[in-house]
Amino acid sequence: MRVGVWLVGARGSVATTVVTGAAALRSGLLPPVGCVTETPGFAGVGLPPLDALVFGGHDIGGSPLVERAEELARAGVVPALLPAAVTGALTEAEAEIRPGIGGGPGRGSQRGEAERVIGDLVSFRERRGLDRVVVINVASTEPPFEVRPEHADPAALERAMDGPEEVLPLSSVYAYAALRAGCPYVDFTPSTGVRLPALDELARAEGLPYAGSDAKTGETLVKTALAPMFAARALAVRSWSGTNLLGGGDGETLADPAAGESKKASKDRALAAILGHRVEGETHIDHVPDMGEWKTAWDHVTFEGFLGVRMTLQFTWQGCDSALAAPLVLDLARLTARAHEAGESGPLTALGFFFKDPVGGGEHGLDAQYERLRAWANGLGVSA
Amino acid sequence: MRVGVWLVGARGSVATTVVTGAAALRSGLLPPVGCVTETPGFAGVGLPPLDALVFGGHDIGGSPLVERAEELARAGVVPALLPAAVTGALTEAEAEIRPGIGGGPGRGSQRGEAERVIGDLVSFRERRGLDRVVVINVASTEPPFEVRPEHADPAALERAMDGPEEVLPLSSVYAYAALRAGCPYVDFTPSTGVRLPALDELARAEGLPYAGSDAKTGETLVKTALAPMFAARALAVRSWSGTNLLGGGDGETLADPAAGESKKASKDRALAAILGHRVEGETHIDHVPDMGEWKTAWDHVTFEGFLGVRMTLQFTWQGCDSALAAPLVLDLARLTARAHEAGESGPLTALGFFFKDPVGGGEHGLDAQYERLRAWANGLGVSA
Amino acid sequence: MRVGVWLVGARGSVATTVVTGAAALRSGLLPPVGCVTETPGFAGVGLPPLDALVFGGHDIGGSPLVERAEELARAGVVPALLPAAVTGALTEAEAEIRPGIGGGPGRGSQRGEAERVIGDLVSFRERRGLDRVVVINVASTEPPFEVRPEHADPAALERAMDGPEEVLPLSSVYAYAALRAGCPYVDFTPSTGVRLPALDELARAEGLPYAGSDAKTGETLVKTALAPMFAARALAVRSWSGTNLLGGGDGETLADPAAGESKKASKDRALAAILGHRVEGETHIDHVPDMGEWKTAWDHVTFEGFLGVRMTLQFTWQGCDSALAAPLVLDLARLTARAHEAGESGPLTALGFFFKDPVGGGEHGLDAQYERLRAWANGLGVSA
Amino acid sequence: MRVGVWLVGARGSVATTVVTGAAALRSGLLPPVGCVTETPGFAGVGLPPLDALVFGGHDIGGSPLVERAEELARAGVVPALLPAAVTGALTEAEAEIRPGIGGGPGRGSQRGEAERVIGDLVSFRERRGLDRVVVINVASTEPPFEVRPEHADPAALERAMDGPEEVLPLSSVYAYAALRAGCPYVDFTPSTGVRLPALDELARAEGLPYAGSDAKTGETLVKTALAPMFAARALAVRSWSGTNLLGGGDGETLADPAAGESKKASKDRALAAILGHRVEGETHIDHVPDMGEWKTAWDHVTFEGFLGVRMTLQFTWQGCDSALAAPLVLDLARLTARAHEAGESGPLTALGFFFKDPVGGGEHGLDAQYERLRAWANGLGVSA
Repeated sequence: MRVGVWLVGARGSVATTVVTGAAALRSGLLPPVGCVTETPGFAGVGLPPLDALVFGGHDIGGSPLVERAEELARAGVVPALLPAAVTGALTEAEAEIRPGIGGGPGRGSQRGEAERVIGDLVSFRERRGLDRVVVINVASTEPPFEVRPEHADPAALERAMDGPEEVLPLSSVYAYAALRAGCPYVDFTPSTGVRLPALDELARAEGLPYAGSDAKTGETLVKTALAPMFAARALAVRSWSGTNLLGGGDGETLADPAAGESKKASKDRALAAILGHRVEGETHIDHVPDMGEWKTAWDHVTFEGFLGVRMTLQFTWQGCDSALAAPLVLDLARLTARAHEAGESGPLTALGFFFKDPVGGGEHGLDAQYERLRAWANGLGVSA
Repeated sequence: MRVGVWLVGARGSVATTVVTGAAALRSGLLPPVGCVTETPGFAGVGLPPLDALVFGGHDIGGSPLVERAEELARAGVVPALLPAAVTGALTEAEAEIRPGIGGGPGRGSQRGEAERVIGDLVSFRERRGLDRVVVINVASTEPPFEVRPEHADPAALERAMDGPEEVLPLSSVYAYAALRAGCPYVDFTPSTGVRLPALDELARAEGLPYAGSDAKTGETLVKTALAPMFAARALAVRSWSGTNLLGGGDGETLADPAAGESKKASKDRALAAILGHRVEGETHIDHVPDMGEWKTAWDHVTFEGFLGVRMTLQFTWQGCDSALAAPLVLDLARLTARAHEAGESGPLTALGFFFKDPVGGGEHGLDAQYERLRAWANGLGVSA
Repeated sequence: MRVGVWLVGARGSVATTVVTGAAALRSGLLPPVGCVTETPGFAGVGLPPLDALVFGGHDIGGSPLVERAEELARAGVVPALLPAAVTGALTEAEAEIRPGIGGGPGRGSQRGEAERVIGDLVSFRERRGLDRVVVINVASTEPPFEVRPEHADPAALERAMDGPEEVLPLSSVYAYAALRAGCPYVDFTPSTGVRLPALDELARAEGLPYAGSDAKTGETLVKTALAPMFAARALAVRSWSGTNLLGGGDGETLADPAAGESKKASKDRALAAILGHRVEGETHIDHVPDMGEWKTAWDHVTFEGFLGVRMTLQFTWQGCDSALAAPLVLDLARLTARAHEAGESGPLTALGFFFKDPVGGGEHGLDAQYERLRAWANGLGVSA
Repeated sequence: MRVGVWLVGARGSVATTVVTGAAALRSGLLPPVGCVTETPGFAGVGLPPLDALVFGGHDIGGSPLVERAEELARAGVVPALLPAAVTGALTEAEAEIRPGIGGGPGRGSQRGEAERVIGDLVSFRERRGLDRVVVINVASTEPPFEVRPEHADPAALERAMDGPEEVLPLSSVYAYAALRAGCPYVDFTPSTGVRLPALDELARAEGLPYAGSDAKTGETLVKTALAPMFAARALAVRSWSGTNLLGGGDGETLADPAAGESKKASKDRALAAILGHRVEGETHIDHVPDMGEWKTAWDHVTFEGFLGVRMTLQFTWQGCDSALAAPLVLDLARLTARAHEAGESGPLTALGFFFKDPVGGGEHGLDAQYERLRAWANGLGVSA
């Protein structure tokens, strides 16, 4: 099975780390640390091997991948000598990057944009002889988009796309095009993407699986590992406050309060779901450019124990955003490709392990998600 | 079902909080925060209700329970007005406290000590009309005791107990006596207690269940909630360092390096078991008298992610030791009593959820332990 | 010297702690921990002794001081039995609390309000036979007030006060009245108070000293102790981010974004002053009601060292707001009274040690402020 | 003025960073971040400029400086391309590294070792045409050395050095030789070095200044910035606990409990000196090899405020050891050379700003030390 991995935001830090890292793993230069699908629990699942992955994508600009990889090496995200060692793979992927669709006035109908994306995807699949292509959105988070009636009505959506109005956010144009091109789709960010009733209907009609949204790579990852502890021990969480300091591109985008709100909302949902009630406390996302590719989260939890005694837990997570995200992109590409092969369609709720806001619902506790993921992956195609 | 809860160390902070808190819950003064067995997951298990519990125990000294409860109220461990509100229950339990067995020269054979303990337990059960009595060791941690051949040989142990030598540590004399008196036994501390092959054999011969050891109430609780996250995400933990600052009695005992070693060893086992390999890093236990009944743990974890990038997680846990321990004592008493009723004998490995060093082995990840506990509890007596 | 201490916000947590604590110190029940003016460095300054202080104040409502003190005892801010032991002092101060001036429509001219305050102050001084009365604003922080031309022009201000408009924020009406009544004035909060050119002119004309503003009792205290370390060592601070979690009344007020902005602005000024340049990073103030009288600040500092290496300092401060503030109120009352006696007038810049935003300017580094305070206090009246 | 800087431990991480960094600053490649003596407060002191410094030293082995610098670049301690840019300077310094004196049996008398060191120093000064040479010990920390009567008696020391016994620890042989060669001496580590009465007498007799010991570059730096805050605010510190996690060479050495004790003792002294009383709490130094050149310190402080309320301060310092140390080596070399030129002899107590355990005594509070340093430096040679 040869699988295309089509990255929307193909010259961003996450995508660059994905392509650089996949090449390093394939050539055995580095071990697959951080890759869930390389652990023994997924050995018999029939996933496409790492060297079956072929990369391409859309971006609206940016330096070539080789230069981006060198930037990341200077920032300590990838080893200093790695970009030089995998120049071939970077150049190959660079050759498969197409201009992204833009926003703003004068760009024609969304129908036209979608058709261009479909063309790029089909061409990629055919030219490269791929069994399937998984489209993954790793572009910057969009601000929330106003809800419109067409979002719930496939026919109305089709009509509106022929008109001059922007009926869909960009991420959803990509999702629409992916589904129309026969490609499974993954929302790695909190942007709307495929999460519209009309697109869900389209995915089911086309027999395509999709997954999302908003990968958990830091604060929420730790939160969903810790919150079940309080629940299991009957300790009553009273407040959970968090501050996230982000450098780099993602921080800048999320410093836009509107985009930040999308992110915060998906962060809060998990906690209430695990504890069974809402708790006090705010979540801040600050852009601190000096932190570059790194991020720090501080969380402060107050809880009540036996006889009303108040206690506190704090944690500080210091991580490299792209290094946390990239192996999950590889995991999601492989698992989604396998699900497609096995005939799954609609939301892949078993992939909730990877997301802050699992599409299709399901548990939020990390360990429960992990057990479900393993069981699902090992059962794929078994009954068939 | 009327169940006796016999506490070794009956005037310590944990035991005092247990008796005070049980009375508060029974009279509806406070909700059962921190009590695992009061959550919906254990509703149909057939546990003895809280007002079926009758308290007694051994101690080698200490102020009466009413005074101890007032001390704890001044320290903020129990609400200020609670001791006055539950004086009756404290006085009733105080009346069931018997002099503990001592150590040191000139105290006669361990046989004599054991027989006195057996007498106290049988008398308690008979006078109070109890269906069964669970013995729980909540006394200060002992220093490690040298291994002797008699520990593995029931007959040799019986012979040696008639002699003048101390063949067993005190905690094991209590465990021996409990089993001989037909009582299930729980090691709440890391002391040896029932964890000797000869006592395991005795328990099985008598058809008695036992559980232990070393309740997880702070650093290890959080550790075993977090470590599975690293394992599930294939992140490579490289070091895990911890510092525990403890005031009060427990801190003083553990400041004795020998006793501290018992505790540290049981803390380290969990981590290696979850991650599948040993990691660098030390665990310190410091006695800081100024902290009184409170404890603080700081843990620092370094881990490697994708392409070798190094990242860090730190947490600080600030808790009240007795308030964390007491509800677990109630949980263990009820679950062990129910297991006894259901005919279980030998080590109750399904209670590993409560312990740093689960007797009989089993998983260390907190969530997996919780799922196993629930399944076991809900299946008790079902096949019978 | 008998000195009146007139507290605006006389039934708030800070004021209640001040009156309760002063009584405890006077009767020798507790040592003067937290009182700067009780340390040896201030022994020869000629300050009014603690038992020369007589308390009164304004408030717009609230429970009587005895009840407020009991509330604080339940919250652990003052020892459990202390309110009962100092009931006499609380009742005496309660008898000197007058209705505060309100805001809103229909309350008559600010002239009328000011005259009523002046009447209360003069009556207090005369009835109680006081040498002087220091007015200290410990009321909740006001939202920012729009700048008006009258604020810079004493004659215009006098005219405007006769009219129906609110020309001054409430804190400034109190400050105006204090000065007109011959009383030194202290801004303990970031509210405008005496910080208007017209009031500065009035103070100088009346020969009255004043001080402010915004006492440093937590995050900024630590910040101004740490920032000089970076400056002295030539380490280049690149970002300083902070999150403040506040329960209780102050948190609620500051959760109002407008009031919070006043506070944040005064917090930021100190850092830029010490380091000589602005740094990246935001300061959040969150209201977390569950934290009650307690507050927690987490600060995260990134800095650059030799050859550009990036490093990090974090701190977490967990304090009780009123217990941190109250002794400073006593210090400020005594020092300001002494300055008045010694003939000082205008802004007391030497009191910058106590404030986030020292009126009249001066250094922000804590140690330099301390040395200046000591030198100034010990020189008071020396040349006279 | 041309000044030699002779580093004992010349191929260690600190020394390598010193030589690499000095070259970078001299050529203007990087700004002098972390160099106290490059700040405006020291502009008129008459210090030798950075390009007047000539490096040499002793070491008992190690890779050449060029290789060591490349290792540090890979570890992120110096910028990736810097070693290549300053190869000339590294090679020049490498050519001035002489074999260090060893320990152990069969190495002849300490007299012989000292004479060899003296010869190396004199040769360096003469061959390179240096006005003076400052010797600075940046070698690994020694275990404590037993006190001997000869340490207090110059004549007895001279006699003993002719014999076969080791009368001095190695660091003191270097210090002795430095003084005999007419060179000022600086103890950058807690090793004994020049801190013996006989060597103090020798320094004074020779008219040579010396300084030490144990540079503060992390936990103690922050401690001595924060402790004066508690003292100035009359807050009663009750416990101060610390854990230091060190990778690399220094961690390994200090993991030897004996050497660690030297370090801990000098760390504790500062706190008691500032607060005026000893406080509870231990200081741990752990070797965590995974941390490489980095170190993390966590400190936990409990303190009592007004009316006995308990509060807490914690900090976490994450720094690169060599990057913190290296600029101080340059500062100490320049200041000590200037002091020598100005005719100072004996302990330079004004350099206490740089040290955990200032030789000759003096204040421990960081800000007070800084003010004293500035005043002293600006007064050097003024009266002459």
